[in-house]
Amino acid sequence: MIRAAIIGGSGYAGGELLRLLLGHPAVTLTAVTSRSYAGRPVSAAHPNLTKVTALTFVEEELERIAAADVVFLALPHGASMVRVPALLERARVIDLGGDFRLRNAETFAAAYGMDHSAPALLAEAVYGLPELNREALREARLVACPGCFPTGALLALLPLARAGLLGTDVIFDSKTGSSGSGATPSQGTHHPERAQDLRAYGLFRHRHQPEMAQALSGALGRPLDVTFTPHSTPLVRGIFTTAYAFLPEPISQEALAALYADHYAAEPFVRLVEQARSVYVAHTNFCDLSFACEGRKVIVNSAIDNLVKGAAGQAVQNLNVMFGLPETLGLTFPGTHP
Amino acid sequence: MIRAAIIGGSGYAGGELLRLLLGHPAVTLTAVTSRSYAGRPVSAAHPNLTKVTALTFVEEELERIAAADVVFLALPHGASMVRVPALLERARVIDLGGDFRLRNAETFAAAYGMDHSAPALLAEAVYGLPELNREALREARLVACPGCFPTGALLALLPLARAGLLGTDVIFDSKTGSSGSGATPSQGTHHPERAQDLRAYGLFRHRHQPEMAQALSGALGRPLDVTFTPHSTPLVRGIFTTAYAFLPEPISQEALAALYADHYAAEPFVRLVEQARSVYVAHTNFCDLSFACEGRKVIVNSAIDNLVKGAAGQAVQNLNVMFGLPETLGLTFPGTHP
Amino acid sequence: MIRAAIIGGSGYAGGELLRLLLGHPAVTLTAVTSRSYAGRPVSAAHPNLTKVTALTFVEEELERIAAADVVFLALPHGASMVRVPALLERARVIDLGGDFRLRNAETFAAAYGMDHSAPALLAEAVYGLPELNREALREARLVACPGCFPTGALLALLPLARAGLLGTDVIFDSKTGSSGSGATPSQGTHHPERAQDLRAYGLFRHRHQPEMAQALSGALGRPLDVTFTPHSTPLVRGIFTTAYAFLPEPISQEALAALYADHYAAEPFVRLVEQARSVYVAHTNFCDLSFACEGRKVIVNSAIDNLVKGAAGQAVQNLNVMFGLPETLGLTFPGTHP
Amino acid sequence: MIRAAIIGGSGYAGGELLRLLLGHPAVTLTAVTSRSYAGRPVSAAHPNLTKVTALTFVEEELERIAAADVVFLALPHGASMVRVPALLERARVIDLGGDFRLRNAETFAAAYGMDHSAPALLAEAVYGLPELNREALREARLVACPGCFPTGALLALLPLARAGLLGTDVIFDSKTGSSGSGATPSQGTHHPERAQDLRAYGLFRHRHQPEMAQALSGALGRPLDVTFTPHSTPLVRGIFTTAYAFLPEPISQEALAALYADHYAAEPFVRLVEQARSVYVAHTNFCDLSFACEGRKVIVNSAIDNLVKGAAGQAVQNLNVMFGLPETLGLTFPGTHP
Repeated sequence: MIRAAIIGGSGYAGGELLRLLLGHPAVTLTAVTSRSYAGRPVSAAHPNLTKVTALTFVEEELERIAAADVVFLALPHGASMVRVPALLERARVIDLGGDFRLRNAETFAAAYGMDHSAPALLAEAVYGLPELNREALREARLVACPGCFPTGALLALLPLARAGLLGTDVIFDSKTGSSGSGATPSQGTHHPERAQDLRAYGLFRHRHQPEMAQALSGALGRPLDVTFTPHSTPLVRGIFTTAYAFLPEPISQEALAALYADHYAAEPFVRLVEQARSVYVAHTNFCDLSFACEGRKVIVNSAIDNLVKGAAGQAVQNLNVMFGLPETLGLTFPGTHP
Repeated sequence: MIRAAIIGGSGYAGGELLRLLLGHPAVTLTAVTSRSYAGRPVSAAHPNLTKVTALTFVEEELERIAAADVVFLALPHGASMVRVPALLERARVIDLGGDFRLRNAETFAAAYGMDHSAPALLAEAVYGLPELNREALREARLVACPGCFPTGALLALLPLARAGLLGTDVIFDSKTGSSGSGATPSQGTHHPERAQDLRAYGLFRHRHQPEMAQALSGALGRPLDVTFTPHSTPLVRGIFTTAYAFLPEPISQEALAALYADHYAAEPFVRLVEQARSVYVAHTNFCDLSFACEGRKVIVNSAIDNLVKGAAGQAVQNLNVMFGLPETLGLTFPGTHP
Repeated sequence: MIRAAIIGGSGYAGGELLRLLLGHPAVTLTAVTSRSYAGRPVSAAHPNLTKVTALTFVEEELERIAAADVVFLALPHGASMVRVPALLERARVIDLGGDFRLRNAETFAAAYGMDHSAPALLAEAVYGLPELNREALREARLVACPGCFPTGALLALLPLARAGLLGTDVIFDSKTGSSGSGATPSQGTHHPERAQDLRAYGLFRHRHQPEMAQALSGALGRPLDVTFTPHSTPLVRGIFTTAYAFLPEPISQEALAALYADHYAAEPFVRLVEQARSVYVAHTNFCDLSFACEGRKVIVNSAIDNLVKGAAGQAVQNLNVMFGLPETLGLTFPGTHP
Repeated sequence: MIRAAIIGGSGYAGGELLRLLLGHPAVTLTAVTSRSYAGRPVSAAHPNLTKVTALTFVEEELERIAAADVVFLALPHGASMVRVPALLERARVIDLGGDFRLRNAETFAAAYGMDHSAPALLAEAVYGLPELNREALREARLVACPGCFPTGALLALLPLARAGLLGTDVIFDSKTGSSGSGATPSQGTHHPERAQDLRAYGLFRHRHQPEMAQALSGALGRPLDVTFTPHSTPLVRGIFTTAYAFLPEPISQEALAALYADHYAAEPFVRLVEQARSVYVAHTNFCDLSFACEGRKVIVNSAIDNLVKGAAGQAVQNLNVMFGLPETLGLTFPGTHP
């Protein structure tokens, strides 16, 4: 059994991670920390886990945490980078936050508004999108799980990027559920004003944009101008992304379908469907893709669950790759209808 | 024109009051106060009023406020009772809060957890349900608008109470929208946990229970055991109440229908419908009622908009009665479909 | 491995059953029928199962179906009773519909508006609420799974009924999600008119009422007057029931808590919680209960997922009991937060 | 008083039109037709209008209909073009459908899949977006109200188009509420599958695309490549559009703000706000706009209510322009918070 610890288990991503690891047949949870819930049962923060586990949150102590094979961090931005150097001396680390996603410390500082305290690790950290970096993940010591928006956006256009078929501009128009804002109430997640609202936010300055640009330009082999517009919607779970790409040459629907089918043939969690819909990937680790083209214009739609494939599920998928386990272990929940 | 002022205009009830009074053909708004928004335009708190009014929130100053014919208070519980005595020397007062709804100071203290600072006014205050107290309202100096739950509950059973047809027990099972919790975000209105949730709260100890008991027992002429269970639902607007009454004798559907038709024949805002539904009263001052019976058991359903008939709309209806205006003035918005 | 077949796999209950049985470690699905989808992959009706199974719907043929150890029926009312006699000659039967829930053919005829074609089997059929009938289920040939409303209602009051603590009347005020109406669009599930609506329906004449009365009177040992009011809400998944009971004698909160704790101590799927909420049981087989009392009045709240504990999950739980398997097998999904 | 008739009053757009015209101080409704509801009260189709009007739907008879100054048509596509020639002989016509929006009969045939039966009128019909065609509307005999999507999309980019500041490509990524699908239940509006779903549809082939291209190219003075992607969301009311434009030259936020402020200074129903949100325009005739830029890239967000500014409200606005009335008459409902 792989011994795993979680730092920061009381938020939504931490709660999903807990749920998934509790049901993972090859993992034993050795410790789950929470500053605000230390000493209280896990079900105090996550009532869904009542009668499912008797686990109790503990204070964060290095000795206890690091007595694990792998440590997951589900913390606010900036909180991982001060912990990871010490943790790495004893365990492999999977970070669900943003601290190690960007390879360049200056880009990080610009995006997150703080200096990086462990810039030397940026080059070593593996960006944890298995569909992009599976080989590097197998031996990784430090894995930076992608942001929720980049996960859906990148899976939408990776086949075109790797085939060199992107022009100079791509646009990601993304629509997210409210669970992406976390467990703390705020004006933006106040039910009376969210339940029937749609709005865009962070135009031209969301911190997931440089992450998308880095990964997609990397796959393409040259710089790419990435525009990213997130939207708040009444969904609870899910990110639906509409990606717009302008190809150097016209492409046919058949050629596009063949490219995607070929690219994702072996991927256990990517499904090519007639019409991607967020409702069918809720609570699963799937990313559903559908697409259409007209001349040089290609539109790809992707649907993921922001807390599973966009966070905790992908972290577990990374664990499976890192430890040589079947990649779907612990991630087989098929979603529901409806 | 009637000069009106509002104390506490930045919350949801205050915002609806603002909206209704701005569109009221016989009212001029002389001042609207807000501690947190003073000096800022009304649309800063209520973006729906952008380009609708150029009004600005002001600090609360007695001189300015009381230079009105009528002062509305839309404040947290306990904040009205310390203001009303001074206000009453200069203007008539319509209170949307709970401070003057209960006639007994001890009942108030038990329900609200604080002593009443102006108990002498409790006997004078008129309980502002026009369908119950229209005559008393005409000359009232101080009107206490009913709570949102009591409004829908009382209208459901008043005909039976006044006809002396209630037994010893009634049950009000009420389902409310999230706007009833006000404009401040909280765990209970956090979208991810509210959007698909249903739960009961405050069992046997909600402060609207004594208010219901007082009014219904008053109408019946003898004490009544009132059970009230509020529920949180994913609605934004609306309270739907299912009232259970046990009559002394069996009643027929025809007799029940005749009783209600007769009782509410002249009421402009009560509609007897086949099936009350919250969606059709949203944003209106209507209360829709439907009912059924079996033997001695009667079930009455009522649907209101908690912020209109349950708060600001009823306050305006009271204003109309107090000032001898047509009762529907400024309250003619018919709702929408859907 | 237990060989199982499903008749009627394209609806919501059938889809959930499919999903649960596909993930059940002791079950092999031998056939799934659908009149409208025969010949097409299961994922055509249930897109969530894309890439999860390669199963294809088949026509209903007795030979193929009955070559199973157990046959599940997920059909409209009236469709099971004409199939069950032939099926029972070869396999055990678990019916998710209403045909065999009522023991009395006349009560059935009155509730369902049709004569029963196999009344002789009514006495044999075991009402499949494991918390009530576990022993009888072990050897049952024919199991009638309870309706979704009765499941939550009965679990709320069974401890009081079995302790002989119910008076003459109980009221079940239930609030249901839209998935309970099935997969076929209708006016009542039209999104624009359902998303923000609350209404009651079927007052005094819902067919789940006699089912509740039969089971609860049976547990109590004498007739009981059961009032049941279902409500449509904007939930998708879930039934939340508020049960009102009037006890012969006053009871304390401590005594009530002890009674429930004792009664449900060994139940794997009943949780006693501070505040039952539908959101925390969604997609699980749990029934969460909370309660309060005042004098002789007791209120019990129950929350279930109508398609899992209220339908397909309970059917699988029954399967586990019938075949001597651990009762939670295949039913361990813990729900999510949020 | 202007005498108005409505052909097709039982759908959602017709219902909103009814509601608005019933409250319009300069209009008398002379007839409202409905094939399915003829002879029944208007409130049978629109329960919100119970006690608001005693009007009854009538059969469609030319004599009765055309005894009006203006006839509104709220009919399925293809149903207006066969009626308009006869109607025009007696009354002015405002069509809410798509039959007269496109100036070219071939484009119409391609978009709507049917030949146009009155192509001679296409040149005469005035495209009823007052912000674009106010002058032409004053004398128009036949007005074709824009589609719901084009209304929000065009208002987002008209200032740039008229200033000649658009490049070769624009993208409209639009998110719509379910009321846009009309009053008839369908799989796409089935609550269990819509309440938490997001999906794109009609990629590259929605019939509102040529309408957008025609109007925007017209304003720009040269052809423009318009990509339009509609999305289904859990909203009931509202269309939120994110418009992407690539300018010939970089522009500053200040210059952009000045351009929009100048362009829309006199418009009563266009509001420039910090962040457009669908919730604040619900049930109103407003279009809220916000925008941002980076280099040559401009993003404009627009929010409208699809049934008001996107349909019935705009039709009434057109009426006001056509008959020389104040443009906001009957359209002053300010929306609500929340």
